[in-house]
Amino acid sequence: MQILVPFAVERPKTRLGDVLGSEERRGFARAMLADVLGAIHETGREATVLATAPLDVDAPVEVDDRPLTDAVNARLEGAVAVVMADLPLATPPAIESLFEPAAEVVLAPGMGGGTNALVSAHPNFGVDYHGASVRDHRRIADEIGASVATVDSFRLAVDVDEPADLAEVLLHGEGAARDWLVDAGFVLDAGDGRVAVRRE
Amino acid sequence: MQILVPFAVERPKTRLGDVLGSEERRGFARAMLADVLGAIHETGREATVLATAPLDVDAPVEVDDRPLTDAVNARLEGAVAVVMADLPLATPPAIESLFEPAAEVVLAPGMGGGTNALVSAHPNFGVDYHGASVRDHRRIADEIGASVATVDSFRLAVDVDEPADLAEVLLHGEGAARDWLVDAGFVLDAGDGRVAVRRE
Repeated sequence: MQILVPFAVERPKTRLGDVLGSEERRGFARAMLADVLGAIHETGREATVLATAPLDVDAPVEVDDRPLTDAVNARLEGAVAVVMADLPLATPPAIESLFEPAAEVVLAPGMGGGTNALVSAHPNFGVDYHGASVRDHRRIADEIGASVATVDSFRLAVDVDEPADLAEVLLHGEGAARDWLVDAGFVLDAGDGRVAVRRE
Repeated sequence: MQILVPFAVERPKTRLGDVLGSEERRGFARAMLADVLGAIHETGREATVLATAPLDVDAPVEVDDRPLTDAVNARLEGAVAVVMADLPLATPPAIESLFEPAAEVVLAPGMGGGTNALVSAHPNFGVDYHGASVRDHRRIADEIGASVATVDSFRLAVDVDEPADLAEVLLHGEGAARDWLVDAGFVLDAGDGRVAVRRE
């Protein structure tokens, strides 16, 4: 099965702009991509990076500068998995859990209604990544009569979009993204309530 | 195995104060507790509510008004599970996943470094719920030589502390807490980025 990992080459992770400069965001995004590709590789599967521009990475690359939804829908032939590039907590077992349910559409929700990973094996399924996509993907699957399974994974649910998410990487990450944050001086800042990060 | 569900009777969920009044927070906290107790009950296991004051609920209640850490540590005899009361996405399979690893300490992390559920079967293990407790619980287990397993569950990771968490309940909940929010007029507010809630 083909596994696509979409990746925005030029201006990734704009919502981290308060804590990382633009060059840093590019570096950190590359580190997260390396973690995701590494986790997929360790399952014995291979990924293709679906990139908005050419990039040098240890995987085959397809360049498509259309919006994410269009670029993915153009490639939903046969059984295809789509795994987001900003999941630095993804482990090989978490990736493999996407392929275990016997359903035509498998969804891994992200925090805040996103769809962090999915598998489509139904010819009429199409993605729509705008807004509460996990709800929309359930609806689309229902409309076409596709069976749906949902994967229950914290490691796939944590996508890194906002500064608070960096705490999850420091707490639970074990790869390049965590190392990148540590090298950049980020540390946990524990108080009451949820743990945050600060930069030293 | 005993399963403890700690519950703050008087002033629950203060961080929801911007969107819910104090009486509403009590009602919503009770709905979440009902969901957690229901999920545990459906596994065929039984829970005891560890409450800060007497309350009327469909489960045995032990009252202990000490801080959470002290009240739990006073009860870690033999094999004990502790499941937080603010996990309205918990399903029976997610609860059951706590009992699958063959480890002396099993941890289910929450968003922001919390420990939303744990199982202790090591005589020297003790909890410390202040700060980044999942990190502290790993350290404590290491110090006493206890084997540790971590459960990877989005449904156990989502505890409801802050207004943004209510979106997860509307998106993924199927029980009393979701019904409570719907009855109170909460709807999803999807835009760019993560989905929020608004009240109509």
